[in-house]
Amino acid sequence: MRAIQITEFGGPEVLTVADLPEPSAGPGHLLIDVSRAGVNYADTHQAENSYLQESALPLVPGGEVVGVADGRRVVALTGTGGYAERAVAPEALAWDVPDAIDDVTALGMIIQGASAWVLLRRSVHLAAGESVVVHAAAGGVGSLAVQLAKAWGAGRVIATASSEEKRALALDLGADVAIDANEPDLRDALVDANGGRRVDVVLEMTGGTVTDQSLRALAPFGRLAFYGMASREEPAAVRPATLLTHSATIAGMWLAHVFQLPGDVMRTALDELFGLAATGRIRVVAGGEYALTDARRAHEDLRARRTTGKLVLDPSR
Amino acid sequence: MRAIQITEFGGPEVLTVADLPEPSAGPGHLLIDVSRAGVNYADTHQAENSYLQESALPLVPGGEVVGVADGRRVVALTGTGGYAERAVAPEALAWDVPDAIDDVTALGMIIQGASAWVLLRRSVHLAAGESVVVHAAAGGVGSLAVQLAKAWGAGRVIATASSEEKRALALDLGADVAIDANEPDLRDALVDANGGRRVDVVLEMTGGTVTDQSLRALAPFGRLAFYGMASREEPAAVRPATLLTHSATIAGMWLAHVFQLPGDVMRTALDELFGLAATGRIRVVAGGEYALTDARRAHEDLRARRTTGKLVLDPSR
Repeated sequence: MRAIQITEFGGPEVLTVADLPEPSAGPGHLLIDVSRAGVNYADTHQAENSYLQESALPLVPGGEVVGVADGRRVVALTGTGGYAERAVAPEALAWDVPDAIDDVTALGMIIQGASAWVLLRRSVHLAAGESVVVHAAAGGVGSLAVQLAKAWGAGRVIATASSEEKRALALDLGADVAIDANEPDLRDALVDANGGRRVDVVLEMTGGTVTDQSLRALAPFGRLAFYGMASREEPAAVRPATLLTHSATIAGMWLAHVFQLPGDVMRTALDELFGLAATGRIRVVAGGEYALTDARRAHEDLRARRTTGKLVLDPSR
Repeated sequence: MRAIQITEFGGPEVLTVADLPEPSAGPGHLLIDVSRAGVNYADTHQAENSYLQESALPLVPGGEVVGVADGRRVVALTGTGGYAERAVAPEALAWDVPDAIDDVTALGMIIQGASAWVLLRRSVHLAAGESVVVHAAAGGVGSLAVQLAKAWGAGRVIATASSEEKRALALDLGADVAIDANEPDLRDALVDANGGRRVDVVLEMTGGTVTDQSLRALAPFGRLAFYGMASREEPAAVRPATLLTHSATIAGMWLAHVFQLPGDVMRTALDELFGLAATGRIRVVAGGEYALTDARRAHEDLRARRTTGKLVLDPSR
């Protein structure tokens, strides 16, 4: 079968097309005939072995697919192996997809949608009326977080994004205001965007000074969820004594841990997300479909921040 | 009227009995005929001017009283001035007390009970079945947190306390296990006490290595609430990247901020706390009643950690 294989770690140039043996599904696993494979920023870390989880070579990258297994249409987390015509996933990490949900929407919900859901519901416990800053609001998680926050009764939703086009998208998705994340005094810019009041919730995946400044913009009992470090720059370490004097919370979130939570949190999240999407209250922004043989270009576009919305690969091409 | 006055900052020796003019209540304030004044650890910081809020001299210490104002029986937060026969409090910081609630219980709920309530409900969002570590479990907040956690369906409640007597009290209040907070490897001791599993929630007010070790004991999606630094030793600063890779949360909580929250959170908290106390499901541990003229001894006992339970002053003596 056709697949993308990596035999040495590196940038987009290490993604090469290969003809590999069909995978086989062991006990408790599903063999999925892949309709579309999702492309995530984490895949670029996987390819250069800079992700939270170490990669091993040779590697077929790709952590999520939608397709058909044993007659069921499922969206599934594969860990690796997604950039291929056939992929294997644990049954526990595969979820049925309603007919009303298209491939791109299913792929947009399994990691980005679920992340937004977990961030707002579990990491920060968004309450109605609260102000919410969504950084990278045109991104996969951000674009869904903006819509979910509004659907769940947030007060002012303040989006940040790095370009005029991305800010326009964030506003189109329901953000009340969109600002440039590169403002020289981001703390003041966030407070200004909230009518002069400090903010209740921040969803942050950039790192560096964006995290530092966002923490300083929190109101008492404000919560910042930290779920990524796209700039690859560490924020300053945080003194617990400072959190104490400001009644501030910082909540780390790595989606891999969601699968360890008691109860089927993913099923709950996906049911709600698919329901909201089926009724048009939230939508996945489609970012482009690439032939599998163009996977390298997909990574180049993603790393150069040229893309907006969910990227998918079509393994039939 | 008789009051305790401080004219220079310092330890318990600066608490002296004085005959002062009666205070008067301005608009929006109540003049309270004090039945009992609560003694808190924060008062020792107030006396030496090491508290989060700066003190000004001359100072009548004491932030909470129960008594009668305009024919109403109220428990109130005074800021300062509580160690006296009469005290003034803003109307917004005075709450009616049901007849079924005695003075010590009312005083035990207004700061310690409300803190435990806010910590579990707002800072860590305790869910049924979760494991909870309560440090200083025989203390004012701790003793109520142990009982509230059990009343709200927590799984295993792990108490820490510095003496055999305090651990016995924590067990009597419903903790499933009680360990010494001075264990050389506190992280492992907490995990062992939880049957080998990392813990979901930690309520921490000690600081220093107790905070550091407790953070390391958190399970994915675990939350540590940091609401005091009784050891006066700062914990290590926390890298957001570490919180990310562990899906861990650290939540600062300073009760003063609760009064700035929208909605009458204190009234909600006190209603629930008084209700649980009236039906015997939770109780305030009485720690001793001192004559006002013995305020210095009360601070000495508190600082030497000789006391357990709620300390109150009787201004008629």
